[in-house]
Amino acid sequence: MVEVHVNGRRLLQRLEALARIGANEQGGIDRQLASAADVEARAWLQRCWSSELGLSVRLDAVANLWGEGAEGTEPGRKPILLGSHHDTVPNGGRYDGALGVLMATEVLQTLCEAGVRLRHPVGLVSFVGEEPNGFGVSTFGSKVLCGRLTGEDVRALRHAETGELLNGALDRMGGDAEHVGSARLQPGAFAAFMECHIEQGRRLIDAGGTAAAVSCITGIYREHITVTGEANHAGTTLYKDRRDALAAASEVVLAVESLIREPKLSGVAATVGHIEVFPNASNIVSGRVTMSLDLRTADPALRQQALAKFGAAIDEIAARRQLRITRTLDLDQAEMAMAPVVRDALHDACVAAGERDQTLVSMAGHDAANMARLGPAGMLFVASVGGYSHCPQEFSKDEDVVKGAEIFLQALLLLDRRLDA
Amino acid sequence: MVEVHVNGRRLLQRLEALARIGANEQGGIDRQLASAADVEARAWLQRCWSSELGLSVRLDAVANLWGEGAEGTEPGRKPILLGSHHDTVPNGGRYDGALGVLMATEVLQTLCEAGVRLRHPVGLVSFVGEEPNGFGVSTFGSKVLCGRLTGEDVRALRHAETGELLNGALDRMGGDAEHVGSARLQPGAFAAFMECHIEQGRRLIDAGGTAAAVSCITGIYREHITVTGEANHAGTTLYKDRRDALAAASEVVLAVESLIREPKLSGVAATVGHIEVFPNASNIVSGRVTMSLDLRTADPALRQQALAKFGAAIDEIAARRQLRITRTLDLDQAEMAMAPVVRDALHDACVAAGERDQTLVSMAGHDAANMARLGPAGMLFVASVGGYSHCPQEFSKDEDVVKGAEIFLQALLLLDRRLDA
Repeated sequence: MVEVHVNGRRLLQRLEALARIGANEQGGIDRQLASAADVEARAWLQRCWSSELGLSVRLDAVANLWGEGAEGTEPGRKPILLGSHHDTVPNGGRYDGALGVLMATEVLQTLCEAGVRLRHPVGLVSFVGEEPNGFGVSTFGSKVLCGRLTGEDVRALRHAETGELLNGALDRMGGDAEHVGSARLQPGAFAAFMECHIEQGRRLIDAGGTAAAVSCITGIYREHITVTGEANHAGTTLYKDRRDALAAASEVVLAVESLIREPKLSGVAATVGHIEVFPNASNIVSGRVTMSLDLRTADPALRQQALAKFGAAIDEIAARRQLRITRTLDLDQAEMAMAPVVRDALHDACVAAGERDQTLVSMAGHDAANMARLGPAGMLFVASVGGYSHCPQEFSKDEDVVKGAEIFLQALLLLDRRLDA
Repeated sequence: MVEVHVNGRRLLQRLEALARIGANEQGGIDRQLASAADVEARAWLQRCWSSELGLSVRLDAVANLWGEGAEGTEPGRKPILLGSHHDTVPNGGRYDGALGVLMATEVLQTLCEAGVRLRHPVGLVSFVGEEPNGFGVSTFGSKVLCGRLTGEDVRALRHAETGELLNGALDRMGGDAEHVGSARLQPGAFAAFMECHIEQGRRLIDAGGTAAAVSCITGIYREHITVTGEANHAGTTLYKDRRDALAAASEVVLAVESLIREPKLSGVAATVGHIEVFPNASNIVSGRVTMSLDLRTADPALRQQALAKFGAAIDEIAARRQLRITRTLDLDQAEMAMAPVVRDALHDACVAAGERDQTLVSMAGHDAANMARLGPAGMLFVASVGGYSHCPQEFSKDEDVVKGAEIFLQALLLLDRRLDA
């Protein structure tokens, strides 16, 4: 391996600086898509990439931020792209997205300063709107890049609270809402994509690890479930006459939880996180409950088993309680395997740095899953203390951040050699 | 018994007419406290009582409507009061409250037309704001009458949605907010109070009965329960690391339901009807849930048994799931027995009319519970088809309404003879 090392201190200082943009009083960060803090962070990155790395910086039509100009030694090669996103959920943490963008920045700057030129050009990207947001679309920027969202789709999107059209927000951020389609990339537009991200779970930290390559990004399946019982008086309605939608919904919640307690379904995450009760009054037996099911696994066979078990539980609950439970599909997003060439470069760099011989499934969605539709893509996870995610407690140790950056740098060097070798 | 009969057709026509005031497009009635429909119904009753019954009608300071002037034969006797309320819940039914007011009206008119004068004067009352309402106070009018609410208490009340002060609404309705205390009655201000109300349950209808006397009005106990877990990522948080507040809350809901499935706790009603989940997002394991417990029984010993069982269940859930469950008392309203003299008059009239030899506990709260603090009070239940309550499906058969009125009339005659005989 080449003897070149990242400037850990600079990386940590930039994490600190970016964390100030959108910082709120609860210790978290409000840097949602199209917010003032999003715009400010975008300008901050732009300055950093252009003045400190000498890159040429541009926004595409949907305001993905690109840093270009680090040329390769072999003409005609497509770039290796590095990056993540800089937006956050409301009251989010300082690592989710930011770490990936700033680690990519540090690794490229390290190479430039060391005078190391790769075979491939290297490009930086900070995707727009990766997190769930008021416009109702997550991994927005990368969805447009890979064609999952078209200009027509985007035109329909409007912020649930402010009412602003997403197109208006795009123009405001320096995009070009009239030509959303121009942001789309064709398959083969890049040689590879690599993203570093915090794990957002406790598998690494609990085993004393720092980093691991991602094998696959989970499939996400979502349903909207409605339990229809009969609203009635909480005092005068005897047990035998109740069709209590909330009691039935409670059994549904526990049926979902039983899926993830089942050893045979290890690797499945299943959650009811959203519930609405009608009429939701203390003195009325509930007549109707709507609720969400979020079910994730990288293994379609496991998903089928989980859904079969859940379906049987639902049928049993509805029959026993003599009420109606209906299910509507909201999302059925297939799992996405990471490209072996990228995964192996990341994995080999991890093992060389003394990490365990393992790869991890990502149980969260990421821009890398969209990029994988266009070309070889891979991800590196860095350990999350306590597994906290999307909250102010989100934290990765300084030494893990720096070691992760060293691994990311070495993986890039490996990947550059191995691609079309 | 005196051979005098109510005019059933007139009673049914008045029920029909009153049901048109506040009728909505879903087939229900919107006649909440201080609404335009409340004011209109009040004017309609006022006209009916004054022009058709020749009563002198007045509003007290909190806008309870009184119909007075039906004198008794024995000077110096306090009146027997008959009535109920004319407000409804949002999208309520046409019988709750209205039946009691109009049956009282019919019975008194019948006596007047037949030239029957009782020993006691007879007064009519339609209480203000009996139903839960935006001002956050139910059985409002009778609470003021018996001193459970003072002028100072009332001054603080404001409509949750419109922001209107209750005092402003009282003046608007013809009350006198400056002198709320003047509405208060002293114990002994009346000889007895009788109210007819639909059962709002299925005990009568399921047994083929029409009417029954009420033995006792249930005690109502309410808690506010908070489950504090840990909000976390729905994908990346393994089962062992979850502190899912909604899953724990679901077990609490089922623990409450298990109370009313227990044969030893027969006579207890227990319900979770209100629940709020935070952050309530499909992709986040819930961090906190607040919920209500509504527990009713006429037997304090049963309530203690139920609460002990529930407390043990709560402790077990919190310990097993390693999260925190806190409970706050919201309401602890004792049960209220009906006065034997009124209960027996109603019961004897029921039995004489061929009804089963039974009395029923009222599992809903009523103005009669407040009136019982001031003097002998009793209630008659009329069968509810399907037990529907507080909804457009609320229905009592015409023949049951008329038979109920005959029983109410005979009970009044019995009571008049038996009081201080």
